[in-house]
Amino acid sequence: MTTEETAAAPAPAADAPAAAAPAEKAPRAPKEKKEKPKKEPKPEQGDGKKSGGGAGGDAKGLGLKNSKKDNFGEWYSELVVASELISYYDVSGCYILRPWAFAMWEVVQGWFDKRIKQLGVQNSYFPLFITEDVLNTEKDHVEGFAPEVAWVTKYGNSTMEKPIAIRPTSETVMYPYFAQWIRSHRDLPLRLNQWTNVVRWEFKYPTPFIRSREFLWQEGHTAFASREEAEKEVLDILELYRGVYEDVLAVPVTKGKKSKKEQFAGAFYTTTVEAYIPETGRGIQGATSHCLGQNFSKMFGIQYEDDDRQKQHVWQNSWGLTTRSLGVMIMTHADDKGLVLPPRVAPKQVVIIPIPKASTAPETVQAMMDKVAELTAALEAKDVRVVTDTRSNYTPGWKYNHWELKGLPLRMELGPKDMDNGAVVLARRDTGAKETVSWADVATRVPALLETIQADMFAAAKARTSNCTEVCHSWEQFMTALNNKHMALTPWADEEEIEEEVKKKSTTPDAMGAKTLCLPFEAPELPEGTKCFYSGKPAKNWALWGRSY
Amino acid sequence: MTTEETAAAPAPAADAPAAAAPAEKAPRAPKEKKEKPKKEPKPEQGDGKKSGGGAGGDAKGLGLKNSKKDNFGEWYSELVVASELISYYDVSGCYILRPWAFAMWEVVQGWFDKRIKQLGVQNSYFPLFITEDVLNTEKDHVEGFAPEVAWVTKYGNSTMEKPIAIRPTSETVMYPYFAQWIRSHRDLPLRLNQWTNVVRWEFKYPTPFIRSREFLWQEGHTAFASREEAEKEVLDILELYRGVYEDVLAVPVTKGKKSKKEQFAGAFYTTTVEAYIPETGRGIQGATSHCLGQNFSKMFGIQYEDDDRQKQHVWQNSWGLTTRSLGVMIMTHADDKGLVLPPRVAPKQVVIIPIPKASTAPETVQAMMDKVAELTAALEAKDVRVVTDTRSNYTPGWKYNHWELKGLPLRMELGPKDMDNGAVVLARRDTGAKETVSWADVATRVPALLETIQADMFAAAKARTSNCTEVCHSWEQFMTALNNKHMALTPWADEEEIEEEVKKKSTTPDAMGAKTLCLPFEAPELPEGTKCFYSGKPAKNWALWGRSY
Repeated sequence: MTTEETAAAPAPAADAPAAAAPAEKAPRAPKEKKEKPKKEPKPEQGDGKKSGGGAGGDAKGLGLKNSKKDNFGEWYSELVVASELISYYDVSGCYILRPWAFAMWEVVQGWFDKRIKQLGVQNSYFPLFITEDVLNTEKDHVEGFAPEVAWVTKYGNSTMEKPIAIRPTSETVMYPYFAQWIRSHRDLPLRLNQWTNVVRWEFKYPTPFIRSREFLWQEGHTAFASREEAEKEVLDILELYRGVYEDVLAVPVTKGKKSKKEQFAGAFYTTTVEAYIPETGRGIQGATSHCLGQNFSKMFGIQYEDDDRQKQHVWQNSWGLTTRSLGVMIMTHADDKGLVLPPRVAPKQVVIIPIPKASTAPETVQAMMDKVAELTAALEAKDVRVVTDTRSNYTPGWKYNHWELKGLPLRMELGPKDMDNGAVVLARRDTGAKETVSWADVATRVPALLETIQADMFAAAKARTSNCTEVCHSWEQFMTALNNKHMALTPWADEEEIEEEVKKKSTTPDAMGAKTLCLPFEAPELPEGTKCFYSGKPAKNWALWGRSY
Repeated sequence: MTTEETAAAPAPAADAPAAAAPAEKAPRAPKEKKEKPKKEPKPEQGDGKKSGGGAGGDAKGLGLKNSKKDNFGEWYSELVVASELISYYDVSGCYILRPWAFAMWEVVQGWFDKRIKQLGVQNSYFPLFITEDVLNTEKDHVEGFAPEVAWVTKYGNSTMEKPIAIRPTSETVMYPYFAQWIRSHRDLPLRLNQWTNVVRWEFKYPTPFIRSREFLWQEGHTAFASREEAEKEVLDILELYRGVYEDVLAVPVTKGKKSKKEQFAGAFYTTTVEAYIPETGRGIQGATSHCLGQNFSKMFGIQYEDDDRQKQHVWQNSWGLTTRSLGVMIMTHADDKGLVLPPRVAPKQVVIIPIPKASTAPETVQAMMDKVAELTAALEAKDVRVVTDTRSNYTPGWKYNHWELKGLPLRMELGPKDMDNGAVVLARRDTGAKETVSWADVATRVPALLETIQADMFAAAKARTSNCTEVCHSWEQFMTALNNKHMALTPWADEEEIEEEVKKKSTTPDAMGAKTLCLPFEAPELPEGTKCFYSGKPAKNWALWGRSY
């Protein structure tokens, strides 16, 4: 339903991140290779244990081998496994979302679901399967998906009379029923959403969260009597997508409209939120909200009777947000020590670690544990998500590294000195900054600090992205920007064939070609007489270009 | 994962409810038949509208044509469509869950999800697909599912080198990774759950909610160091399943253990909550909580190192609850006017209907509408889920019937007389009882009355079920009970071959054979010397028998 997976993609260039995990080759040819489940790094095992042999208490074995700056692709693949977000799966291109990842998806779901319900959207569930005939109803639409559709042809030992498709998106699943349910203007608006899995059997590089053959998403499908209502919703939803990225995930995005070439097949127009990964210099589509116009309603015969008893075709939208959003968040914030989670999406926000010494008196240790329990209760009463790590068989240093790998926004330390001072030490994951807070202030300081971290992480990411957009009026400036791993904001004549040409011409031995990410809603003024950076014709609008995922 | 769909089933007998919808024949032979989306009854259309021709204001066209008592199967099929829970779908055996149904599933999800998280279970997501090799790892387990497994063999126009199965349940998806993740006793317990769709390509009668080829469920999969911990969880979960049925859906269930013949393939033992539909005289499995023992951990090599550094196989459970639960609730409570929803699961609990007359002065109409808004706000402040029906183009009578069809527990009427008296009239959906409540008391009376309705609905259903259990000590008593559409509680020697024999022997030209529903946890005493009702051998336990879904 979004174009993210379907827009014609360049052949993976040499600078494409080596997204395939060490043990998993991305399939390039349409050949299936059986792979054994991989053995994974087990950070909890080995070093760091006090008991047993080995290094006994240092933090070796927890760090990442790869670095975000030097080998981004390997770093990402290592990170998502080491931090226990993902396990690579036996069917290539499919991934297991482990509890640490899924809890973040639940936060995103909760945030978005509540808000669409406030708008009047209702949840529902439509089947996974589509008959061949129905899938083929809208030729233009299906064309983009056809090569990626997975087909069920057998059950048990029998062959089905006709193959049945697994949904790559649900327009053709839903709209025949919209045509049944909608009769009168009183049946409108019809605003449905579902949270589901979809399947697109792609052969581009699979990357955890970012591109997988099965993924989780929500897809909204709505019908209105008027164009005005439909267009208002397109932007209402886009604003919620901005909210998911900026307000929850602390990832800056650019709102805009897709070019004709990049829009969803069959859409009237597509709006998008676009994010950007500075380390790879690539844009990434965050989520899309499509106005379908009356294209699908004409194809599927979705009509209502207006007040004058005239039949009218409805105006439709569709819009989708996927688990990709988590991947973008991870790429944006994580570092060489592991995940760095914005507080609002972190499944746990604070880890409390008591640090008794071997010399600490037993009654002080007990007092310390009591204090940990007390502070935990005080924070939970303020809806702070707390975990305590009182394990005696790991050193404090090992624990610090472990929770840094998991990305918790705050660490609270409580040692013998802190017991004397009636205080704790708070350490921020994002900046490493430490501060001492008295016990009495913990329950007010921690929630405030979490909000500060959320805001600071967003501001820092926003500054990084802003520094990576160059205004370009010529081809030379444009290529310089791309070679700087930047995005290019250009005046543009808005011609599809030019976009095609730019893509080809900007392809280098080392890097894929650039495409328009969007025509941003917020852009500089475009004075009369401004020329297209490429064609020299009169510019019609500003376009944001970049290499992209 | 549950045996509900896999236990060897009798050929549909003549008294099987005509579960297939009028327009949809249940496929019996392995032949796929392409079906067009059906046109559905549109209760909102036609009669009842004040404007336009026709009967002008009465409630014709809304009632159900079939009756629960006389033709249960047709009544159910008509009801789920007319009340806008379900649409029949283009792929037979698959159904669309419309918002009215899905909102109820969300209530069940919310209730159960919160409680398993309190127990320490974490949500996750495992892929839809299973490779052939992995699926075949546990032969006994896969045997039950093999005939119903759907296979993906193609993508686009290409053929996959090896077919890939769609999960019918996720034991084989998950357990290879359990073997990777679990090393030490410190990795235990591992308690995962997922809310997903699964596919079982069955050729038994499909029935909305009750039996479909794709259905929604949660499946919990857990691993423990000790048998004691595992067995405690089996019962903790079973108690939550009882809670879903009895406390949320107001459906009485019997807790018990499955007979060897009826337990989940590969389980150590299976526990179950069993419901019962008096009109058809059939038991129905509500949800199952399996102790898998060490069967799967030995098969998949899931071991941990204990304190003495010895390798031990983990103890495992799996447990599942499906959208079937909604079907059981509907069958239990609905009547010939439509759904009757227990307040806790009702997406909307109260409909407020102002009833101005043609002669009512405009300022009184306005005051009425203001009062509706005021009462709505007061109830919403008490977390009551309210809908108001102020539409002017439908008569009050039509609205009453419409909301009765949808099953709302309470209707609040506000007419000109009520305006004079400063009161409203409340009408209960379950009993039809009416009472007048002053405006000042509405916000306290309505929540209390909803709780009363919930309790009364459960008590009424419980009484109906209790009247349908007969203690039987002989074959004659047993067959009399079955012919009365009752369940039979019998002393039993607990022999598998006898269960087989009973099933054959109790099959009549008109009805399927009976099987054990469960060995109930709560049963009468079994004095020494009590004989098995069938074999005359010494009885080992009590068994609850019945014809079943």
